Amino acid sequence: MTDSRAHVLELCAKAKAASPLLAKASGAQLNRFLLDLAEILRESADTITAANAEDISFAKANDLSEHMLDRLMLNKARLDAIADSVVDVAKLPSPIGGGEVFTRPNGLIIRRTRVPLGTVGMIYEARPNVTVDAAVLCLKTGNTVVLRGGKEAINSNRALVDCIRSSLAKNSLPEDACCLITDTSRASSTALMTMRGYIDVLIPRGGKGLISSVVENATVPVIETGAGVCHLYVDKTADTDMAVKLAVNAKTSRPAVCNAIETLLVHREIAAKALPAISAALPEVELRCDDFCHDIIKKSGFAGKLIHAADTDWDEEYDDLILAVKAVDSTGEAIEHINTHSTRHSDCIVTSDIAAANAFRSEVDSACVYVNASTRFTDGGEFGLGAEIGITTQKLHARGPMGLDALTTVKYLIDGDGQIR
Amino acid sequence: MTDSRAHVLELCAKAKAASPLLAKASGAQLNRFLLDLAEILRESADTITAANAEDISFAKANDLSEHMLDRLMLNKARLDAIADSVVDVAKLPSPIGGGEVFTRPNGLIIRRTRVPLGTVGMIYEARPNVTVDAAVLCLKTGNTVVLRGGKEAINSNRALVDCIRSSLAKNSLPEDACCLITDTSRASSTALMTMRGYIDVLIPRGGKGLISSVVENATVPVIETGAGVCHLYVDKTADTDMAVKLAVNAKTSRPAVCNAIETLLVHREIAAKALPAISAALPEVELRCDDFCHDIIKKSGFAGKLIHAADTDWDEEYDDLILAVKAVDSTGEAIEHINTHSTRHSDCIVTSDIAAANAFRSEVDSACVYVNASTRFTDGGEFGLGAEIGITTQKLHARGPMGLDALTTVKYLIDGDGQIR
Repeated sequence: MTDSRAHVLELCAKAKAASPLLAKASGAQLNRFLLDLAEILRESADTITAANAEDISFAKANDLSEHMLDRLMLNKARLDAIADSVVDVAKLPSPIGGGEVFTRPNGLIIRRTRVPLGTVGMIYEARPNVTVDAAVLCLKTGNTVVLRGGKEAINSNRALVDCIRSSLAKNSLPEDACCLITDTSRASSTALMTMRGYIDVLIPRGGKGLISSVVENATVPVIETGAGVCHLYVDKTADTDMAVKLAVNAKTSRPAVCNAIETLLVHREIAAKALPAISAALPEVELRCDDFCHDIIKKSGFAGKLIHAADTDWDEEYDDLILAVKAVDSTGEAIEHINTHSTRHSDCIVTSDIAAANAFRSEVDSACVYVNASTRFTDGGEFGLGAEIGITTQKLHARGPMGLDALTTVKYLIDGDGQIR
Repeated sequence: MTDSRAHVLELCAKAKAASPLLAKASGAQLNRFLLDLAEILRESADTITAANAEDISFAKANDLSEHMLDRLMLNKARLDAIADSVVDVAKLPSPIGGGEVFTRPNGLIIRRTRVPLGTVGMIYEARPNVTVDAAVLCLKTGNTVVLRGGKEAINSNRALVDCIRSSLAKNSLPEDACCLITDTSRASSTALMTMRGYIDVLIPRGGKGLISSVVENATVPVIETGAGVCHLYVDKTADTDMAVKLAVNAKTSRPAVCNAIETLLVHREIAAKALPAISAALPEVELRCDDFCHDIIKKSGFAGKLIHAADTDWDEEYDDLILAVKAVDSTGEAIEHINTHSTRHSDCIVTSDIAAANAFRSEVDSACVYVNASTRFTDGGEFGLGAEIGITTQKLHARGPMGLDALTTVKYLIDGDGQIR
């Protein structure tokens, strides 16, 4: 066994051993842990920001992009926001316990109750806020958690996990309920993906490379999060003003997130009217168009970057100010394009026709199907789930934004007085 | 591409193409299909039993075991029972549609509705009844299905799938909603496991070899079914008569099924009383005991086969009239043994002590945890789920007996009037 694997195995074994203890904790005890954690995070602001400054200076020395630096950076305001969100999670109802009871004709009493999954593994990139987010959601639901964050954030993560473990200890909960893998080599990441018998579910959060590495290598159960090739389809009956507004919001409000759109589909009969208006509202966006749309947009005098789309553009998650544009002959063709190229995350139709809306809703095979609203709403908070551990495009276990429920499973408790079959 | 892979790909593509059509079918239409199918199965009894006779004579020529021959055999009475169960499934409420609606402060209306998974793959062994069972449960829930049954049952399966497809056609539903892989080579099985983009979930039903081959090779999402190393723990406060009754039922009523027990754990303080009574009631069962239990049973004059357990016995699914027997010092030690060796299917405590029952319930990490009742009740029908596509020991998506719900997923439908974020 390599050193990396031994390190990861030791931590996973500790987290697993802590699991029955954590599962026994009451909801009230877990909430007190969360409220104390919020306090400790605020009190430790100097220590945490100092650790983060180390990460930042190391990252600058290694020429990390501005975008990456911004995601890595923690200041007092951001820490306050993190602490606030911990308090919010404490206020959420716990999904643990409860369930249905049914009494069978033979007198057996069967309770279908909700229990923690056990031990959750998280693999993510250089975003220290995910460390607290993920740990808090797992612990709230009685799961222990093993964290493997990006190497660029290691000092910040150590400082944050110290706070989490202090608050666990303060509340007589096992510190090993939250373990941080401090070996940030690729080997430690692979080791975590293969901890069968220790990790009940692994949740990767991050870019395409990370997700596909997990899907290829993991032997533990995985809930994939992320990839979003989302579509906005402008039907022939669309309100053009609404189409403009939704396209601008869904493409530009935060282009690097998974619920931003990557492709605009336009019904051929409305293209001459809609495309000039939409493109004019997206001057900073590079448009990659099929020939038909390219002609229309070019003639309208679009001042931005306009190029011809390649076949690969229909499957690309740009995460940037780039939009693929294509004309279709019917709602059916739009649906077919989406079911072929979408990552089945979030797709939208703009229409005033009930039949088109209904066909789109029932036939688009995506987690979130929108009629006349921006795909940017696909989010646990926006959906009212209270908190979100990620957004999944899988169909099993959870689909779409995953709230606290997604971190639980069921258990059947059967009570009898000697029944046999 | 090999011929096998091309054959499987063609069928999977057909079943996937049929999926939106089937998803549009109403519950009433699907139920009419089921009722017609029951009729067609009864009318086709001669054709089906003739096809089955071919399978049986081929199997006999190939020296299949009596046990296997019995599972393969179809006669009119068995066909009638199959047809009856199809009618039962028609009577069950459909989980499709419905769900919750929540209106957000910004006016968005979010519906969390229940939809079919899409296309289900089934891999199973030479049990023709599974062909109808699996197809019926998938189709009832609006899923299309690709079946890959054992080669020994190929003629029976062809005849049964002909009936299913006739009834689909009769009800204006796509025949390709049910496809049978007629190439029964190992290559076709592997091909089905790797049909990413075509198969939404693969459900293997069968022995350990089949399940582990699927877990190792599948790249499509899988719901594992099956393996059951189940335990009966006789606590020191147990009613000995009840312990005898439950041990006999859980071991001998159907030793080859997954909810039968493989290991008996006995509290050391009750062993001298309980073990002679239990072993006397299991004269036909081979007992593999730790030294302590071996001594007690031997002295009691047990007439059956009694041997010393090897370390491997604690992890063995015998599926036969064999029982491992071990003494423990406490309920805690029993729980630890179970959490180490159980396949997390079904485990039982016999006790009259509330504290022991509660500890067992909360700490045993299995899908079904029994207090004072036989583990043989772990079954969709016995639990009142109406039908069962299998029993899973996974924690994600479904756990324990899987009813119709397990063949569905959720979909968020979001309606707005131009909301942006």
